[in-house]
Amino acid sequence: MKLISGGVCAAKGFTANGVHCGVRKNRTKKDLALIYSEVPASCAAVYTTNLVKGAPLDVTKKHIENGVAQAVVCNSGNANTCNANGIEIAEQMCDLLGTALNIASSDVVVASTGVIGQPLSIEPIKSGIPALVAGLSADGCDAAAEGIMTTDTVKKEVAVEFELGGKTCRMGGIAKGSGMIHPNMATMLVFITTDAAIAPEMLKKALSTDIAATFNMVSVDGDTSTNDMVTVLANGMAGNETVTAEGEDFAVFMKALNTVTVALCRMIAGDGEGATKLLECTVSGADDMGTARTVAKSVICSSLLKAAMFGADANWGRVLCAIGYSGAAVDVHRVDVSFRSPKGEILVCKDGAGVEFSEEIAKEILLEREIEILVSVGDGNVSATAWGCDLTYDYVKINGDYRT
Amino acid sequence: MKLISGGVCAAKGFTANGVHCGVRKNRTKKDLALIYSEVPASCAAVYTTNLVKGAPLDVTKKHIENGVAQAVVCNSGNANTCNANGIEIAEQMCDLLGTALNIASSDVVVASTGVIGQPLSIEPIKSGIPALVAGLSADGCDAAAEGIMTTDTVKKEVAVEFELGGKTCRMGGIAKGSGMIHPNMATMLVFITTDAAIAPEMLKKALSTDIAATFNMVSVDGDTSTNDMVTVLANGMAGNETVTAEGEDFAVFMKALNTVTVALCRMIAGDGEGATKLLECTVSGADDMGTARTVAKSVICSSLLKAAMFGADANWGRVLCAIGYSGAAVDVHRVDVSFRSPKGEILVCKDGAGVEFSEEIAKEILLEREIEILVSVGDGNVSATAWGCDLTYDYVKINGDYRT
Repeated sequence: MKLISGGVCAAKGFTANGVHCGVRKNRTKKDLALIYSEVPASCAAVYTTNLVKGAPLDVTKKHIENGVAQAVVCNSGNANTCNANGIEIAEQMCDLLGTALNIASSDVVVASTGVIGQPLSIEPIKSGIPALVAGLSADGCDAAAEGIMTTDTVKKEVAVEFELGGKTCRMGGIAKGSGMIHPNMATMLVFITTDAAIAPEMLKKALSTDIAATFNMVSVDGDTSTNDMVTVLANGMAGNETVTAEGEDFAVFMKALNTVTVALCRMIAGDGEGATKLLECTVSGADDMGTARTVAKSVICSSLLKAAMFGADANWGRVLCAIGYSGAAVDVHRVDVSFRSPKGEILVCKDGAGVEFSEEIAKEILLEREIEILVSVGDGNVSATAWGCDLTYDYVKINGDYRT
Repeated sequence: MKLISGGVCAAKGFTANGVHCGVRKNRTKKDLALIYSEVPASCAAVYTTNLVKGAPLDVTKKHIENGVAQAVVCNSGNANTCNANGIEIAEQMCDLLGTALNIASSDVVVASTGVIGQPLSIEPIKSGIPALVAGLSADGCDAAAEGIMTTDTVKKEVAVEFELGGKTCRMGGIAKGSGMIHPNMATMLVFITTDAAIAPEMLKKALSTDIAATFNMVSVDGDTSTNDMVTVLANGMAGNETVTAEGEDFAVFMKALNTVTVALCRMIAGDGEGATKLLECTVSGADDMGTARTVAKSVICSSLLKAAMFGADANWGRVLCAIGYSGAAVDVHRVDVSFRSPKGEILVCKDGAGVEFSEEIAKEILLEREIEILVSVGDGNVSATAWGCDLTYDYVKINGDYRT
């Protein structure tokens, strides 16, 4: 497994682009992105669990029922959600793209992100499509990654190279997601492409297995968006023998997928709205996965702990508190807590009670940009990791007046 | 039901006091509070559901097993939680008070609030008790209310007068609670006194019924404290016939209790850490109480909505979003949302979709100090209310470095 450049264009046969079309007022911000595969690809997706769902999700769901897609279009600036004509607009987006790309409109995956409840006009999108399609290129990943950003401050892309049955394959992804992000659903917008050949049902299996340990373990603010989805397109152009069942090749594919998704999870959490720190909580010693995941997510979601991390304050009582209300059946008298960063590691709680530690060293560790919170809950052999970020003045600022 | 002054000393036979004893470094802050009843009183309490529990809760639980108590002692500045000698210290507090007041130490209710995981020394408490007891007075409610404050910015007290079987009764309460506050547990520290005569088992029933609609519907930050409890002492000195069963008198008692608890809920939510606004979400039209409460709590807990309210931004999409992920089975296409304050009421969403409204009027409404979020989910006849506050820069500031 080797990290490479190129993002969603790293895999053979994929091109991408992003343009400003006018959904957003600000002309310097791209607001329309496209990913295109030369040939039809296996496609799988997972969606938000919110009952209030963006119209694009319904359209995408219908389009990929047959497990095949060839392009992904996504606008930012407007979520096309809670609008009377949402489905119609989402379908028009696919029709326009289908015509421009000369593919079936039912092979287009559509997504939107931005404000909820404001009608989305098709006009800017219609006028932007010619340039969007004309500009498709193998160097277009950056533009596409930019086109799906909302309050994100950095583009999120990653790609890896791996081998399947003697053939070199590539997989890459882009993501957006900064606020309204919370475990237990298909979170954020994530588009992954690969040239590996894999049957749609195995792709679906790979994705749904993976997200339970990755995107569903990310939380920025506890709010579950109405529009989030993760999609993977696999176009088979690497020429490997198609993965049609579990086995060695499937395991390698899963490993590649996990490398891409974990990298994107870390980018999303670290770029959480207003965040100054990436928080990674690893819970070990659990007897079962449910316990490990529940505890890790509860810690990462605690507003009080998130604020303490912003202040580089080793207030481990808040970790204990979050474990205690997580709902998981842990023996709190067996809980150990340490903080770790590139500056070192410090034990702050042993068997559920405080230990003496140097506040100066703890401060130095917590002033870093990436903080690990290590929790041991017993002598079981199951671990889980969750990702989050600190709670800062800027989170409040960004969300205090998002619409204007 | 008449609002009166006096707080926990409004009821006959109750005195109170608060002093600075030295648990806190800051000499201008009271940190030890006492409430005392001339005669033994019926006592009921509810406690946090957090698995990590403050030592005082265990001691209190044991002490009021017989349904009787005569005094409440509470320190602020240290939660006496996650400490190896926590139980011992809590018991010593009761012993010292029992001796000083000449009552059984098992008739003392003990509570602590503050930082978790730092050993609590008995010394300052021991040295503070003589002055604490000597200063007990019928005017002491203010001092006691001050003694239990942590990050609270205002004292929280209320009292009412009502009639039971021809006798005038009084009930009053004090509360503290500003951060680490979340629905679904016995929240915060609340001490209620009444001179009504009521059997311990009926008092228990009244309290556990009431909190489901009051303290369990308050959220400041989604964090459930380890130390929170609500206790009621009823000393019977009003001379009414003891309430021993359901019926008219019990209903009046419940009404009085609810008046006191709702007032304290509003004070607690409105004084949430860093809050500039009290948010009150009322969900109507539900088919069952579970749905109404789940939806109301989900709305009040949304970080995104809380930040929008801070910015006086009528971003109703976030209300819809929070309803959608609440877990309640609502038909989102039947949801209406309005915002209301002393400046007026404005409909912003009808049948799950936006309606045209004046942003100027909405802004004016949302700039007020108390905001109602009115949600209708159908044509059922069940309603529920939840209380919360906005998310502000100051919440982050207060919690970024709480320990120093």
